[in-house]
Amino acid sequence: MGQDGLLMDYITSANIACGFHAGDADTMQQTVHLAIQKNVAIGAHPGFPDLQGFGRRNMTLSPKEVYNLVLYQIGALAGFVQVAGGKLHHVKPHGALYNMAATDAALSQAISHAIKDFDSQLIVYGLSGSFLISEAQKLHLRTASEVFSDRTYQSDGTLTPRNQPNALIQTKSEAVSQVMTMVQTGNVPTITGQTASIQADTICIHGDGTHALDFAKTLHQTLITNGISIKTIE
Amino acid sequence: MGQDGLLMDYITSANIACGFHAGDADTMQQTVHLAIQKNVAIGAHPGFPDLQGFGRRNMTLSPKEVYNLVLYQIGALAGFVQVAGGKLHHVKPHGALYNMAATDAALSQAISHAIKDFDSQLIVYGLSGSFLISEAQKLHLRTASEVFSDRTYQSDGTLTPRNQPNALIQTKSEAVSQVMTMVQTGNVPTITGQTASIQADTICIHGDGTHALDFAKTLHQTLITNGISIKTIE
Amino acid sequence: MGQDGLLMDYITSANIACGFHAGDADTMQQTVHLAIQKNVAIGAHPGFPDLQGFGRRNMTLSPKEVYNLVLYQIGALAGFVQVAGGKLHHVKPHGALYNMAATDAALSQAISHAIKDFDSQLIVYGLSGSFLISEAQKLHLRTASEVFSDRTYQSDGTLTPRNQPNALIQTKSEAVSQVMTMVQTGNVPTITGQTASIQADTICIHGDGTHALDFAKTLHQTLITNGISIKTIE
Amino acid sequence: MGQDGLLMDYITSANIACGFHAGDADTMQQTVHLAIQKNVAIGAHPGFPDLQGFGRRNMTLSPKEVYNLVLYQIGALAGFVQVAGGKLHHVKPHGALYNMAATDAALSQAISHAIKDFDSQLIVYGLSGSFLISEAQKLHLRTASEVFSDRTYQSDGTLTPRNQPNALIQTKSEAVSQVMTMVQTGNVPTITGQTASIQADTICIHGDGTHALDFAKTLHQTLITNGISIKTIE
Repeated sequence: MGQDGLLMDYITSANIACGFHAGDADTMQQTVHLAIQKNVAIGAHPGFPDLQGFGRRNMTLSPKEVYNLVLYQIGALAGFVQVAGGKLHHVKPHGALYNMAATDAALSQAISHAIKDFDSQLIVYGLSGSFLISEAQKLHLRTASEVFSDRTYQSDGTLTPRNQPNALIQTKSEAVSQVMTMVQTGNVPTITGQTASIQADTICIHGDGTHALDFAKTLHQTLITNGISIKTIE
Repeated sequence: MGQDGLLMDYITSANIACGFHAGDADTMQQTVHLAIQKNVAIGAHPGFPDLQGFGRRNMTLSPKEVYNLVLYQIGALAGFVQVAGGKLHHVKPHGALYNMAATDAALSQAISHAIKDFDSQLIVYGLSGSFLISEAQKLHLRTASEVFSDRTYQSDGTLTPRNQPNALIQTKSEAVSQVMTMVQTGNVPTITGQTASIQADTICIHGDGTHALDFAKTLHQTLITNGISIKTIE
Repeated sequence: MGQDGLLMDYITSANIACGFHAGDADTMQQTVHLAIQKNVAIGAHPGFPDLQGFGRRNMTLSPKEVYNLVLYQIGALAGFVQVAGGKLHHVKPHGALYNMAATDAALSQAISHAIKDFDSQLIVYGLSGSFLISEAQKLHLRTASEVFSDRTYQSDGTLTPRNQPNALIQTKSEAVSQVMTMVQTGNVPTITGQTASIQADTICIHGDGTHALDFAKTLHQTLITNGISIKTIE
Repeated sequence: MGQDGLLMDYITSANIACGFHAGDADTMQQTVHLAIQKNVAIGAHPGFPDLQGFGRRNMTLSPKEVYNLVLYQIGALAGFVQVAGGKLHHVKPHGALYNMAATDAALSQAISHAIKDFDSQLIVYGLSGSFLISEAQKLHLRTASEVFSDRTYQSDGTLTPRNQPNALIQTKSEAVSQVMTMVQTGNVPTITGQTASIQADTICIHGDGTHALDFAKTLHQTLITNGISIKTIE
């Protein structure tokens, strides 16, 4: 949590875990306060009920179960946001839920319906080019297409799964370089050597790495230096 | 869950477990729908994070932790209620949280603040004569003083703890009789042979016993036969 | 738990949940004692860490993770068995773990290795014709091929998944009839109208249904009446 | 986990969390392997079922429940130890369970009985001067009296609770100095200015602090420099 406060100086959106894969009522309360203080847009970050696996292991749930777990987690976080005088801004599914939804229309519909039913003004953050983006748009929800700085891409524009050896980008310079390419060209290099087209509305940074803060600073500086302004999604 | 639908024909308030001591997103969604359909007032029933002990084991949490876990659970349930077109009506802490708050002003304040901060129109259900009632009233929250049909009372008006042999009233007729005495006289007999004064705004019925439905019917009929009308607390 | 004691008069093996999908230290202790008293062979019943879904939802875990969760749960139960003066007899994976292993050699290997490493005398209970049986046999573990009385079969000899409408056999007479066919002919009728060959070393009865006890009695009586003796697997 | 391997060069006993307050099957498997490789004695570290509170929040459980949760956790860990070719050496209750047992004879009896019933050769690690030590000794279990380097003591020889401002010793030099006093004099200074007598068979070091490794090295060196040999408890 200590680093979270510093990180928030370099980001415009925070995704807050809601207790199923990580986080609890106490961390949610604290992070919400921090985000409001730092003027960072608050997003619910619902995940599978899998603390042990940090929500990164696929689970086969029915669309109804997914609808309910997303609604539960949004509601739980929204209470803290409202009480702190803020406003919930977006929802970004976490981990395996995010990745499964990316390629599964039924899951994406379930997630989108839960978000719309709770508050139709919420913005859906999903993988660029994913079913989550297209299904949310079918329900007339606003969306933000997300790209990753520290993950490699496959030729179909999806992320290389974490259990593959080349899933992660190892160096800061490569990660910054990938972001700049995506933002400036609308394309991303893939592990097969081709490029895939991509829409970079928002860039994901993981807050739990040891170098997260250093990376956030560098990326923030590089974007600004290159004339790219960073602002909250509206 | 099957019996819940039938039980709801004989009650006016339902307390819905929010996932910490029992319940989950799926049961919450279903019970909320059932309650709305049966026109039963919906209450959040937050408890300690103790699935194994069904929230009935004392836990020593700070007032801040209690505030946060109550707010989390209310928020989670409120999402389902709102989406189903209903309105959250009250909050009743569960099990050990309810009993500890009854005799602990600081816990009762934490719970009351969480309720008020979320929605100052919510009614607080607490043990008749407890700190939860008095602390909620200090915050100008509306309260409902609860009495128990199937639990015996100690001379100070608190419930006999469940781990004591005479904690439970065993027969239906004794339970109905205790309720009638409380409602008609404002007093309850205690295990020491004395009586304690009591305010009976709402009567607790446990839905999980095998005879719950039969008891609810009998009590409902007895109250009406004796000219006591049963209505939702306002 | 009340019914468990009566059920044990009609069975020879009990599978005890170990806390991940159901059960806890207290229920394990009680059930172990009951089984020893009733002279019923005790099996560990490890499942996925999914209390909410009762271990019936597929989870994508690595073989290493599966090895560890099986070993953990066997060890936890074995402590209670040893202290009660009994001996752990077999291991039967639960729910989604059982079904996924049936058709996944790598999972079956992981489970079999965990069992063998803990105690090579343990008998592996698996679906008749499954990878769990064949992989356990490759490690020279003893196995028991299990058949189901209340579940229908697909043409490849696997169970019809629970989320399909015809997954369950509804009447007692049909269930008893299916068992008799399997035991006497080595075949089972399938939902496509064909038969599949089957090895019926042990018959699964679910203890949590309302009619479990009645069914167990009837099946027990029918088997004996037809000259089939029921004994513990050795 | 990374630091755990380095820490193990400076310690002789490791207490491994068993999944209730921290740890899971995967971390247990890894830590057991590491301990065996580093020739460090392995202890089970059972705690209350309170992941959210890291087992540091008091819970009111019956002696029977405590017996069962201790037995469950010892069994779970013992499986990993046995499979890895090691031998479980000791048991040290964690957090609130450790502290509550220190002053509660019934809890200490329950814990001691669980340990003895599982393996009467296990050594019980408990707070110096506590009921856990005396009750374990009544059952003829071997014990090791533990002292703390980074915690202050109250005049009765118990630890200052963590929720008090002066509970923790802040500097490395003070912590080392307290250990040397305890080891060399059999007394410890207390927060009231008096001293309390203490038996220092084993010294607790917390592995999760940022300076844990540095502190372990310094303490190790200081003890050796002062002619005190460090060896596994037998």
